[in-house]
Amino acid sequence: MAQAPEGGLTAMMRSVLAVGAHPDDIELGCGGALAAHRAAGDKVTMLVVTGGQNGPGLVTERRAESEAAARSLDCLLIWGHLLDCAVHPDSGTIGLIEDAIRQTEADVVYVHAPDDSHQDHRAVAAATISAARHTRRVLHYRSPSTTRFEPSLYVDISAHLDRKLAALACHRSQVESSLMVEPEVVAASARHFGAQARVRFAEAFVPSRFVWDLSPPPQLPLVGAEAPAFEEAPAFETAYPSRAVT
Amino acid sequence: MAQAPEGGLTAMMRSVLAVGAHPDDIELGCGGALAAHRAAGDKVTMLVVTGGQNGPGLVTERRAESEAAARSLDCLLIWGHLLDCAVHPDSGTIGLIEDAIRQTEADVVYVHAPDDSHQDHRAVAAATISAARHTRRVLHYRSPSTTRFEPSLYVDISAHLDRKLAALACHRSQVESSLMVEPEVVAASARHFGAQARVRFAEAFVPSRFVWDLSPPPQLPLVGAEAPAFEEAPAFETAYPSRAVT
Amino acid sequence: MAQAPEGGLTAMMRSVLAVGAHPDDIELGCGGALAAHRAAGDKVTMLVVTGGQNGPGLVTERRAESEAAARSLDCLLIWGHLLDCAVHPDSGTIGLIEDAIRQTEADVVYVHAPDDSHQDHRAVAAATISAARHTRRVLHYRSPSTTRFEPSLYVDISAHLDRKLAALACHRSQVESSLMVEPEVVAASARHFGAQARVRFAEAFVPSRFVWDLSPPPQLPLVGAEAPAFEEAPAFETAYPSRAVT
Amino acid sequence: MAQAPEGGLTAMMRSVLAVGAHPDDIELGCGGALAAHRAAGDKVTMLVVTGGQNGPGLVTERRAESEAAARSLDCLLIWGHLLDCAVHPDSGTIGLIEDAIRQTEADVVYVHAPDDSHQDHRAVAAATISAARHTRRVLHYRSPSTTRFEPSLYVDISAHLDRKLAALACHRSQVESSLMVEPEVVAASARHFGAQARVRFAEAFVPSRFVWDLSPPPQLPLVGAEAPAFEEAPAFETAYPSRAVT
Amino acid sequence: MAQAPEGGLTAMMRSVLAVGAHPDDIELGCGGALAAHRAAGDKVTMLVVTGGQNGPGLVTERRAESEAAARSLDCLLIWGHLLDCAVHPDSGTIGLIEDAIRQTEADVVYVHAPDDSHQDHRAVAAATISAARHTRRVLHYRSPSTTRFEPSLYVDISAHLDRKLAALACHRSQVESSLMVEPEVVAASARHFGAQARVRFAEAFVPSRFVWDLSPPPQLPLVGAEAPAFEEAPAFETAYPSRAVT
Amino acid sequence: MAQAPEGGLTAMMRSVLAVGAHPDDIELGCGGALAAHRAAGDKVTMLVVTGGQNGPGLVTERRAESEAAARSLDCLLIWGHLLDCAVHPDSGTIGLIEDAIRQTEADVVYVHAPDDSHQDHRAVAAATISAARHTRRVLHYRSPSTTRFEPSLYVDISAHLDRKLAALACHRSQVESSLMVEPEVVAASARHFGAQARVRFAEAFVPSRFVWDLSPPPQLPLVGAEAPAFEEAPAFETAYPSRAVT
Repeated sequence: MAQAPEGGLTAMMRSVLAVGAHPDDIELGCGGALAAHRAAGDKVTMLVVTGGQNGPGLVTERRAESEAAARSLDCLLIWGHLLDCAVHPDSGTIGLIEDAIRQTEADVVYVHAPDDSHQDHRAVAAATISAARHTRRVLHYRSPSTTRFEPSLYVDISAHLDRKLAALACHRSQVESSLMVEPEVVAASARHFGAQARVRFAEAFVPSRFVWDLSPPPQLPLVGAEAPAFEEAPAFETAYPSRAVT
Repeated sequence: MAQAPEGGLTAMMRSVLAVGAHPDDIELGCGGALAAHRAAGDKVTMLVVTGGQNGPGLVTERRAESEAAARSLDCLLIWGHLLDCAVHPDSGTIGLIEDAIRQTEADVVYVHAPDDSHQDHRAVAAATISAARHTRRVLHYRSPSTTRFEPSLYVDISAHLDRKLAALACHRSQVESSLMVEPEVVAASARHFGAQARVRFAEAFVPSRFVWDLSPPPQLPLVGAEAPAFEEAPAFETAYPSRAVT
Repeated sequence: MAQAPEGGLTAMMRSVLAVGAHPDDIELGCGGALAAHRAAGDKVTMLVVTGGQNGPGLVTERRAESEAAARSLDCLLIWGHLLDCAVHPDSGTIGLIEDAIRQTEADVVYVHAPDDSHQDHRAVAAATISAARHTRRVLHYRSPSTTRFEPSLYVDISAHLDRKLAALACHRSQVESSLMVEPEVVAASARHFGAQARVRFAEAFVPSRFVWDLSPPPQLPLVGAEAPAFEEAPAFETAYPSRAVT
Repeated sequence: MAQAPEGGLTAMMRSVLAVGAHPDDIELGCGGALAAHRAAGDKVTMLVVTGGQNGPGLVTERRAESEAAARSLDCLLIWGHLLDCAVHPDSGTIGLIEDAIRQTEADVVYVHAPDDSHQDHRAVAAATISAARHTRRVLHYRSPSTTRFEPSLYVDISAHLDRKLAALACHRSQVESSLMVEPEVVAASARHFGAQARVRFAEAFVPSRFVWDLSPPPQLPLVGAEAPAFEEAPAFETAYPSRAVT
Repeated sequence: MAQAPEGGLTAMMRSVLAVGAHPDDIELGCGGALAAHRAAGDKVTMLVVTGGQNGPGLVTERRAESEAAARSLDCLLIWGHLLDCAVHPDSGTIGLIEDAIRQTEADVVYVHAPDDSHQDHRAVAAATISAARHTRRVLHYRSPSTTRFEPSLYVDISAHLDRKLAALACHRSQVESSLMVEPEVVAASARHFGAQARVRFAEAFVPSRFVWDLSPPPQLPLVGAEAPAFEEAPAFETAYPSRAVT
Repeated sequence: MAQAPEGGLTAMMRSVLAVGAHPDDIELGCGGALAAHRAAGDKVTMLVVTGGQNGPGLVTERRAESEAAARSLDCLLIWGHLLDCAVHPDSGTIGLIEDAIRQTEADVVYVHAPDDSHQDHRAVAAATISAARHTRRVLHYRSPSTTRFEPSLYVDISAHLDRKLAALACHRSQVESSLMVEPEVVAASARHFGAQARVRFAEAFVPSRFVWDLSPPPQLPLVGAEAPAFEEAPAFETAYPSRAVT
């Protein structure tokens, strides 16, 4: 949990960290849930592990797209700088994610599902499971390349699907060129999982470990709600040096 | 395998039996695949195990809807006469399905997935697994009430989705009143599974046992293709007496 | 969701239904979570499906024990009247549970895990999965007789273990005579699952379907909190007639 | 799909790629299915990822054995040149397999099952799942070292078991010295899986993704069937440079 | 554990109970392991739950075959008298098996695997799991009709395969007429599982619960070993009345 | 199997090898089973793959702790010298474990479960599965960091829990500083699994492959039982050079 930065009020909120291998993975997998977290007053940070160097699109372009998407979801962004298609679930990658967990005091972590046809997705899932070993809520999202996936936990994104699609649309280089990024399929899957969850649109998750907090602290009315707590927060980045993990 | 009834030509074709607990289950679960089978020249029979007596809708109404749906898919129909919400996977139910397999010489059987929140679906799945114990291809389809379902076999229904939705629309009493029958969700799921199958629209199946026939017999051009082999075939019915199964 | 009965205040709360086959199953499986729900202001109802007629202990004795346990957990009690060791997942049992869901407006349902060596536990799990097919949160708890169980959702009961053990102690006839009811094991398992959940004591659950509500309605301070909303509520009972389920 | 090379006739056929880590893995895992594919007129290519440098047997010897086996199965052979016991599922290995898929226009890919006690088998399975992410039919075969394996798809090899054993016998260095290569066990397993598939002899597969093509294009009688299309085709090789995969 | 009946010597031995739905199920599933148990000095009892009334073969004939098979394996036989194709996992069936466990003081129980296409096999598996809830070793064997089966525990029957086949041959009515009973397949499967177990021939099991006894009591040389302890023991029968289970 | 070293008597015994990534993993996972093996007269060797260089605690300190723990369990110790948090399941690691198997003539191997949040645990599990590919008994133990774990095989450690806790207490640097090493949880888990196994305290295992030896060779009374066979055996070490595995 983290303390809200907005001053006198000591409203408690969840701190959420979403981890993805490439610049559009998080939006595809849990963009709707992140919007729902923000709407509930939670703090949300996105950690993009690689720069998506293999394209389509240049790294600078992809980073600008990620920043735009983070802004549209009103989330913080950490840019991980690892190399596309060369992520290993080793101490360096684990350390990068551990630092993000520590820095954000995350008590909810979203990450790829472990069974995926993309080697980076598998590596980031494994590294995050290691890094989040003391975190009480670790949820795996689905990617178009995920292979086995039997979800049991859902987030209702009926009120947030538009925002998810808008965030995804920021990744123009992908939407235009990648077979795996199709907004039409994103909406269809949300409806498919929504029916499973008995809501309209949903994102689906496989919980690795989920401690259900029955008594979330009172969420007091934010002062000056028209000025969202994170609007001014600039998307920041950190280059994490590879270090052994303890 | 079965011999085509259309006369001099000895074209071989598959004989397909689809089994469902209630009047709309087959259309929801594998209506697109059945249309694809018909388009490939296969013989297709639908076995509706109960009359859907618990409604919504009267039995006579539901039967008329089923006949209309079977006609629209150009399939034969067997009406099973068992009691809605009271199906047991016992010798009687197994015998009913065994008779249908024998009568149709089915070499492909479609049926509910075993893990389902509806007791009749579970019972029909279990009884069909028993009845089809010597059949080489047994495929489980998904219902809105299915719980666990990890498909690995798909049928491309991109050319047949319209036909599936048309067949489903014949079940007016359900589309209007049941929370579980929503054409919009049917289309969304077909797109969702299509993306998984790397096609546009797909139905997804869990194979219980699937012998892949690499050398299907030559499918000769049908004589008088504009007069489909089954168009005249009246939907027939059989009341199966409950008997011990051997 | 249900409206709180305490008058002018319109505090929203969850409505929880716990279903168990025999008089002590619920306390063993999720007694701690129920205490946590009550502490969070939720409404909680226990549905005991059979009278535990096969003993040890007489039915009247066991019912008195259940009522004492429900009182100690400050929960409502529904006594189901079905026959011990003769529960079937049929329309009658499903209807009994459906009525309880409807009556309590439950949006959280707890029930046995489906893989269990006791036939009644399997039957009650299957019947509840049918009855709760439209409920957004269905969680399976573990019994001493459960066979396969891979939990992924936990409730922290560190503050409620004493209460769970006290409720269990009300079932004197079982604690004294049944091999399956051992308070020492209950505490050990809570510590075992607590370590898995990264808390001190936990109960573990397998979610059948769990929609995570990120924005629970504000839980206003209860007026006269020293007079808990349910303290006066007498444990009530209803004899549900067996009916076909629709 | 690929066009048949035999000239005027435009018969369509499947293009099959079988991937194995070591010189005898493909024959052991799916040699019978490959023979069945050839009998059905399909094009078949074998990609042997490493040279089997760790023996028993020298690389030159093992390559000659592989060429003889490919000839006996009437298949093309690609020799991958990676190092035995040092395969990683990285961009280099993925690129090697992607190139083979592209070059053969494969629409069916066979590969090791992911759970295997040999590290190279695990690596080749993972790399192939990545490389074949757009392929509609990916089937996992079993090796003597496979650990978990629950097959649901079978190919009837009753007419091809002799050919499989003949191909395997070409790997003299292995049959004589390796505990894992026993023709007697190969035949026993084929009978075991045959009984499961309700045929005489079968090979068993776990489908990762299998789109069932209900309407394979007509397979016209090959001109000069006594001169098999691939008989003259020399086994060719390609040394794939390691490259990043996109 | 049970005390050996042979007098002065107080050698301890295991007491094994094998449960099967029909007259040949036990021999098919674990006949080799039973022979191995007898060779190790254990007491072995076979409980045949139904009379196999549906044939092929008459009940008297099938019972004589079972007695011959039990004699050839040197095991005791309990004939259960329930009705073929009509077994339910209810209190009556559970009570029948509980009595056999109590009477034999069994500490090892073999029974069908739960996932099977035959309804009686499923019912007997479920009832035995209930009846053996306090037994420390419950092992599931495979039948030709078993569907899902991922074994991890094996018994080496290299020295006992002949005996298994001889016991099976006693069931002449089945070997001659049933598609499911083929000695050739039995031997092939034993070799298949033997290779998995790293022995020559093996039977494979899925443990429901297996407490590995590291220190079996000393097995003293039997006095008059040429007169096997059970040779004189007549195959006995008991008709178990259906009773509620406690 | 190995011959007992105690001279004239040719008592046969099992040879057990336990493999762990870090200095306290073996004691946590299977310390009780190892004590039970020693009590049954088996030879037991512990292979600690890394020096636990990342701490808490210095390598020299941790090695002394491991030696004390091995002494307290009366087991041999092999110190593997690989680097903490940098273990890969490659030929070097596999070779290290293969050498230990060969040297100890192990016929039982204990190792981490494959699904674990610690990267070294995953690597050591995978490498051991490779190294023990010809071993008939490979059992996976649970660590506090294990994620998925569905045990089916148990060892009764009711008489050995004290010894397990004493061995664990030797790892003072861990017990004092690591969140993952809590003796209270170790005892609770042993009681939890004991209840599952129908004994008092148990360790739980997932068998990868377990050939049940029904006829263990007679375990003759040891001469001079008061002088345990291994008491004099000094804990030895071997530095294994990394080599390609064949």
